[in-house]
Amino acid sequence: MNDTNNQQENELSNISEVELIKRITKSFKNSNKSTIIDIGDDAALLRFDKTNVTISQDILVEGVHFDLSYVPLKHLGYKSVVVNISDIISMNVKPSHILVSIAVSNRFKINALEELYEGIKLACSNYNIDLIGGDTTSSNKGLMISVTCIGNTKSRKVIERNGARVDDLLVVSGDLGAAYMGLQVLEREKNVFEVNPSSQPDLSQYTYCIQRQLKPEARIDVINYLDELKIIPSSMIDISDGLSTEINHLSRSSGLSFHINESQIPISDDTKTICDEFKIDHSIASLNGGEDYELLFTTSKRNLKKIEQSQHLSIIGSCIDKKNDNCMITSLGQKININSSGWDSFSSSA
Amino acid sequence: MNDTNNQQENELSNISEVELIKRITKSFKNSNKSTIIDIGDDAALLRFDKTNVTISQDILVEGVHFDLSYVPLKHLGYKSVVVNISDIISMNVKPSHILVSIAVSNRFKINALEELYEGIKLACSNYNIDLIGGDTTSSNKGLMISVTCIGNTKSRKVIERNGARVDDLLVVSGDLGAAYMGLQVLEREKNVFEVNPSSQPDLSQYTYCIQRQLKPEARIDVINYLDELKIIPSSMIDISDGLSTEINHLSRSSGLSFHINESQIPISDDTKTICDEFKIDHSIASLNGGEDYELLFTTSKRNLKKIEQSQHLSIIGSCIDKKNDNCMITSLGQKININSSGWDSFSSSA
Repeated sequence: MNDTNNQQENELSNISEVELIKRITKSFKNSNKSTIIDIGDDAALLRFDKTNVTISQDILVEGVHFDLSYVPLKHLGYKSVVVNISDIISMNVKPSHILVSIAVSNRFKINALEELYEGIKLACSNYNIDLIGGDTTSSNKGLMISVTCIGNTKSRKVIERNGARVDDLLVVSGDLGAAYMGLQVLEREKNVFEVNPSSQPDLSQYTYCIQRQLKPEARIDVINYLDELKIIPSSMIDISDGLSTEINHLSRSSGLSFHINESQIPISDDTKTICDEFKIDHSIASLNGGEDYELLFTTSKRNLKKIEQSQHLSIIGSCIDKKNDNCMITSLGQKININSSGWDSFSSSA
Repeated sequence: MNDTNNQQENELSNISEVELIKRITKSFKNSNKSTIIDIGDDAALLRFDKTNVTISQDILVEGVHFDLSYVPLKHLGYKSVVVNISDIISMNVKPSHILVSIAVSNRFKINALEELYEGIKLACSNYNIDLIGGDTTSSNKGLMISVTCIGNTKSRKVIERNGARVDDLLVVSGDLGAAYMGLQVLEREKNVFEVNPSSQPDLSQYTYCIQRQLKPEARIDVINYLDELKIIPSSMIDISDGLSTEINHLSRSSGLSFHINESQIPISDDTKTICDEFKIDHSIASLNGGEDYELLFTTSKRNLKKIEQSQHLSIIGSCIDKKNDNCMITSLGQKININSSGWDSFSSSA
């Protein structure tokens, strides 16, 4: 019986990514003065002279993070860069450089890789980022992309996940749930196509959500805007794995909890229409659907008016002096515990 | 006929890694002042204030770069770090930080990943490097490891590949070919084991070469030693893909050629013995076998005596004012063109 328990405890499918990273890196020790933030935030922070340098790294795997049957390679290249710079931006830093490594099977042709790099180039150009290196190698199966992004700042305050204070406002940029619903549409069309390859779908009514899924943008405009308004977030994170997961990250890091109001979560009309079509609750899509790459941050109540005046920002809740009590007040006044049920790369994979 | 030519030109197996990278990144433009060196050297170079920051990224794929049937996971973790810091060291910079991302299938257990990270930790500890981040995700098949390494220096001159001058000495550290012969032994034992799983091989006579293959070291001691002796290399590279390939890299980058003497290539007695057993020419092993992670550099003739006195360094040739004329003078006085026939991740894979 004990053996069975030990075996189960040893299975990757029974551990979350956060727990796994904690477990395998717990005994590492730092020895460099320049290391300011290491594992556990959106990006690492190093300090060289007066410059704060942030660095993040992601790995994207075909069949796990993307499906080439409906993701064009150019979009994939673009998105690979965007998801990474979003981590840097969520620390309030301007991304400046990337390294891109790919492992690719001989199933791919050179012009397919050129398409992928067209997307990478477009993202570099749109966000003023320099591609400075990487590695290119073969794989036995499929395509893997690893992107490292570097940002630097002298003047801006670097924002971590752990600075939320009691009574702070919880604010989100843009709207949520669209990328997730875009994915539902694409998955459905893929299934239709597999049954009937001659079908010609009209996807025009789904444009917004599909675009949010295939070609997301990182909200550098939002951190510039906050800078202009002199709003300094006390903690910040980007929403890659779903609102509830990210709220739990801020909560754990800051040692506080959040109460949010269901009616205040920003969801676009397009997203709502598709939710209704798919019979998916609007709040489920926004709470658990990931990949919106919007910013979630906390800031002092003093900034209430400034934020209310912005069309980019929504106050969805506030920070409570309690641990492990993240919850949502529904439109009917019910209090629902928010579990971290966003996308987790281990628990969701077969 | 033209179509067939076009199709062939479009195959990944018909292009080298260097050509592929050139082709897919040729139209990228930089827009950040801090970018000093981008694609094409061992590592990128950024400058923040007075600090030079070098960054490199590698990706290692199971079945392409390593075979877990004979590579222990702890050794793999150690080697993943070492091959990356070797790129930083070859620019004459001290490595300081790494990010490690892994994609792993559920075939692996948590304690297997703990073993992998034990090796990463040991390398971090041995080389005073801080693990500052990364990503951990699932894969459909096998294990992929992507490592980004960062180094920084204020005082040391950063050495590129392109600084070799006519009459410079060509110098190599340590000895060559051992890692390649270690691989031959391991591959042979794997084949024996597959035929007869009860065989108990005695590998004690192969210890040196197997160690060089499974647990290579990056030559930070050599750059410290050069620093002490006030020897400044004019160009430098690490030998990851075989001596001939690396000579060709220095040659192309510097616009000059190298003549080397076969008798001066350092090869250990252990390596020679195994070469003889496998009927592999000593020079073939040292020229074409990769993964020794020794340093190959050029420096002024003025440093001849200092280098001759060092047991760590061997002068193997010199730099010639000619293009595309890299060659080796054999022990019999023959002049042999040195083609770049080291390990190439695309041409060598199926």
